Amino acid sequence: MNGARALLSTLVANDVTVCFANPGTSEMQFVAALDEEPRMRSVLCLFEGVATGAADGYGRMSGGPACTLLHLGPGYANGAANLHNARRAHTPIVNVVGDHATFHRQYDAPLNSDIAALAATSSTWVKSADAPEAVAPLAAEAVAASRAGAGGPVSLILPADSAWLPAPDEPVTTAPRPPARVAAGRVASIADAIRCASKPVLLLGGRACLGEALAHAGRIAAAGVAVHSDTFVPRQPRGAGLFAPRKLPYFGEAALAELDGVDLMVLVGTTAPVSFFAYPGRPSLLVPEGCRTESLATREEDPAHALAALADALGAPLGGPLAALALPDAPQGALTPATVGRSIARHMPEGSVICDDAVTSGAAVMAATASARPHDVLALTGGAIGIGLPLAIGAAVARPESKVVALTGDGAGMYTVQALWTMAREALDVVVVVFANHSYVILNIEMTRTGAGRAGPAASRLLGLGEPKLDWVAISRGQGVPAERCTSAEEFDRAFRTAIAERGPRLIEAAI
Amino acid sequence: MNGARALLSTLVANDVTVCFANPGTSEMQFVAALDEEPRMRSVLCLFEGVATGAADGYGRMSGGPACTLLHLGPGYANGAANLHNARRAHTPIVNVVGDHATFHRQYDAPLNSDIAALAATSSTWVKSADAPEAVAPLAAEAVAASRAGAGGPVSLILPADSAWLPAPDEPVTTAPRPPARVAAGRVASIADAIRCASKPVLLLGGRACLGEALAHAGRIAAAGVAVHSDTFVPRQPRGAGLFAPRKLPYFGEAALAELDGVDLMVLVGTTAPVSFFAYPGRPSLLVPEGCRTESLATREEDPAHALAALADALGAPLGGPLAALALPDAPQGALTPATVGRSIARHMPEGSVICDDAVTSGAAVMAATASARPHDVLALTGGAIGIGLPLAIGAAVARPESKVVALTGDGAGMYTVQALWTMAREALDVVVVVFANHSYVILNIEMTRTGAGRAGPAASRLLGLGEPKLDWVAISRGQGVPAERCTSAEEFDRAFRTAIAERGPRLIEAAI
Repeated sequence: MNGARALLSTLVANDVTVCFANPGTSEMQFVAALDEEPRMRSVLCLFEGVATGAADGYGRMSGGPACTLLHLGPGYANGAANLHNARRAHTPIVNVVGDHATFHRQYDAPLNSDIAALAATSSTWVKSADAPEAVAPLAAEAVAASRAGAGGPVSLILPADSAWLPAPDEPVTTAPRPPARVAAGRVASIADAIRCASKPVLLLGGRACLGEALAHAGRIAAAGVAVHSDTFVPRQPRGAGLFAPRKLPYFGEAALAELDGVDLMVLVGTTAPVSFFAYPGRPSLLVPEGCRTESLATREEDPAHALAALADALGAPLGGPLAALALPDAPQGALTPATVGRSIARHMPEGSVICDDAVTSGAAVMAATASARPHDVLALTGGAIGIGLPLAIGAAVARPESKVVALTGDGAGMYTVQALWTMAREALDVVVVVFANHSYVILNIEMTRTGAGRAGPAASRLLGLGEPKLDWVAISRGQGVPAERCTSAEEFDRAFRTAIAERGPRLIEAAI
Repeated sequence: MNGARALLSTLVANDVTVCFANPGTSEMQFVAALDEEPRMRSVLCLFEGVATGAADGYGRMSGGPACTLLHLGPGYANGAANLHNARRAHTPIVNVVGDHATFHRQYDAPLNSDIAALAATSSTWVKSADAPEAVAPLAAEAVAASRAGAGGPVSLILPADSAWLPAPDEPVTTAPRPPARVAAGRVASIADAIRCASKPVLLLGGRACLGEALAHAGRIAAAGVAVHSDTFVPRQPRGAGLFAPRKLPYFGEAALAELDGVDLMVLVGTTAPVSFFAYPGRPSLLVPEGCRTESLATREEDPAHALAALADALGAPLGGPLAALALPDAPQGALTPATVGRSIARHMPEGSVICDDAVTSGAAVMAATASARPHDVLALTGGAIGIGLPLAIGAAVARPESKVVALTGDGAGMYTVQALWTMAREALDVVVVVFANHSYVILNIEMTRTGAGRAGPAASRLLGLGEPKLDWVAISRGQGVPAERCTSAEEFDRAFRTAIAERGPRLIEAAI
């Protein structure tokens, strides 16, 4: 057994069984070893940003890490923007980054670079397996590190000689550790603070938005405490039968208006909210003046236990206010993000996953789907656009029985447009909806907000995608994904219904 | 005048007049300032890797830096692989990386990351303009740093408040400094060493492959010294009327075979050759045993002066062996990289620029075009594929009167496929040739060389792009670039001739 084989062996022994890959010469041993390890599924991506975004989608839906296979520093760099998003989502991912053989590093060959320094900017743990016998122990350590604390992407650097030299046979295993529980004293003191506050709110983020934690938050809402969630939640189960925390608005002034008069903000699985960008003369911290913040559970702690204890301490009822199923009628007329949302709400089956990288159009879809059949929404956590299509790949691999709907703006979609090919190759059950407004619409809005004024001719050319217009149908079919363009609400409703009824990838260009 | 306007003013005052951009909210002031600075041409790219690769192509052809406009850490990360290539090519580039306002950084908003640490992995100089009055002086310093020594990409971080706050009016200028000349003593001692050696060679790299330096190297060849060049040269003028150094082969054993018996290697504008990758039991350093290496001129020093002095010291004649014009006949039959090369050689006009990102197919084109009309070849210097189309954008912007030919494999082409849109938008005179072999051919070769054995079913799925086949004609037309597919040598010859005769971007899928 060589180091590469030992690595695979330890990864699968720790339930890492999917690898999103774009290999190069230095990773050939790993690739060869896949032939002897059928428990590892490898998924080829034509660009590393697709691989890392897919690993993020996989990790958010499965709870455990996938691995990626990346080619030295440039391979990591290509995947780094989506790893930035994954770091913000606290998604466990194990990046395997191939490197030159240890004896070759000193010659500074063309592909050489400081991989460790690069990886440290978007990985929570980085180590290099500089000897074959170190590979399996470090792989186990990497898996554990990806799950430790709040979770996040980690990077194991694998020099080519560590992969090709003989290594010990035995896989190394590591058991996931449950998150720490918060002390009863903290719960009691926060319950007291809530009782004394005139306008207390809960703010949920990360794992506090999932499963039991969400249900207990609903109980607290039933006890009269307003419950909000972060603007961008890694994975938000929502729809009929679920408690729906109120998402904090994206723009700071809207968020502060919503929090007006709040004197106590209890944080669960998140930190105090801040404005996404800074603007001249506007506050960065989205906590009203005079409002006290208390952390019930950090990102690292068990939110379900903490929320259950708090609900009990507050004497909250056992149930909370849950969304009732309410499906909209068939939309008619002009095609807009809102009518797209109504079609999605009507046809999306239970258990669907929406991957949202539609910066300006996504909000209308979210509003329209709030009372749809239960589903999950994966959001753009780190602000690096180009994650929607990759996330959908990962979600579809993690949940082959689910329909995955990828929402993307045309600007964001072009970032990782190569993802379409992987959807076709793997026959993933994904419906891609591209909001084709031929513009970076958000930037036209932000231009004014930053005080930069109205865009003149030169500025406008940097904000518009309309010359020439992208033909998404051609781009999609060129990668093997059937596609069509819709220009009315009726057309889109029919196309989306058909896409849901069939299996396999489909793209719909929504000409809004 | 605000900081953004001051930045533009200083950039254009230092002859930085092209900006390859993909802006976001934090860069809105820069975008707005473009309306008031008509001397700066901005070129929108749909992905940052296109912007940085284009800046590389521009810098290689113009000799001076373009700037890029990148959106915080993720924007830089997306451009980092092509900046890695540019660092290896020593191309001057000034990256302007927008950042959060200085007062906002402390809140660790979603897009926050350690930009300086990230940029340091592929920039030779990184500073942050943390006050508006620092913007212009640091911009001038950045331009100077990009040109200093051997040249390279630099990064100026621009916090949003430094861009929007008032700044001094006066642009800051900096003059390029000529490279240092080597001492006469060094030239004399190397001339002596050459006279005493039984088999001396010159190895040229970087600027030693250009203009007068190349001509003087030809004189030295005429005096009986074998002259080689690096395998990957940033910019190589070649074809009729030019001296052609012999390119070192890519594979180490072939390079060492070619250097067999060499006892003196004189380096000019480069360092001792090393194998691109390491392989079990094969040497990394491509210098024959017992061979002495001497540096005539480092990358930082003036190669033309040094080579002229050495040629004189060796009593070399005034001319060297120059390639004679020899255009091949029209190719017939099956379409291969060699027949593609013959068509390119036949039809490519004088002054054309070939951007080569076709890892396995490019060599046959290079062989076929050695005696074509004089042209330049820009190579993949850092091994990060996905540079061919972006380089072509930059070369076409730098040299609007030239035909640019981009050669790319299908694997490499998909990395930055968004580049096609910018070619269409800017009506750039680029002919893209995609070698569609539906495989990472190089990896099938490397698999055996690394000792990983033959690819089985699982491994093969990571090396093949054939399921489904990419339809480059659809992908190209979808972005506004006219395209056709050719399956025979005759078809390709006709298509390429037509593409050369017309202006504007064209893509030809060569089904080899």
